[in-house]
Amino acid sequence: MYGLIGKMKAVPGQRDALASILLEGASEMPGCLSYVVAQDPAEADALWITEVWDSQASHKASLSLPSVSDAISRGKPLIASFDQYIETLPMGGHGIGPAA
Amino acid sequence: MYGLIGKMKAVPGQRDALASILLEGASEMPGCLSYVVAQDPAEADALWITEVWDSQASHKASLSLPSVSDAISRGKPLIASFDQYIETLPMGGHGIGPAA
Repeated sequence: MYGLIGKMKAVPGQRDALASILLEGASEMPGCLSYVVAQDPAEADALWITEVWDSQASHKASLSLPSVSDAISRGKPLIASFDQYIETLPMGGHGIGPAA
Repeated sequence: MYGLIGKMKAVPGQRDALASILLEGASEMPGCLSYVVAQDPAEADALWITEVWDSQASHKASLSLPSVSDAISRGKPLIASFDQYIETLPMGGHGIGPAA
């Protein structure tokens, strides 16, 4: 498995709009086992995105999906900064759904 | 929903043992929608734990479950440090399983 933990800050006031775009296609990405978008309650414009994929290749391939590249181009103007981007190797757990 | 993103370092050489203990009861905690334990490939002894709960109360209650308090007492000696502990408010996503 392959995992990502990322923190980004939205342009002020645009956090919900950015989250909506990120969540749109979350259940339709082949090989994606988990994709959660969360607010940081301590920072007004910050979002955490945690992802689990069956492989790094599936994650990479997802970036070329029409739905994802469209979401990236619409989301980009709403992103002020990327604060953390951590790759992980998930070992197991609960709630790692079947791949789409 | 209520989320946690935590990073801990195991005592050198004890990461797998600590991860096993953390994973033991992961699918049996009431209100737990997602619980993933992952290695940090960039740090030999570091683990990331990402959690999604139906409520903060469910998370708090889980700490009193016999299986969890037993795991905590066995895991504690294997933990060298807690490096990050971030509370989040998950908005949605994929792979947020049904609560046990």
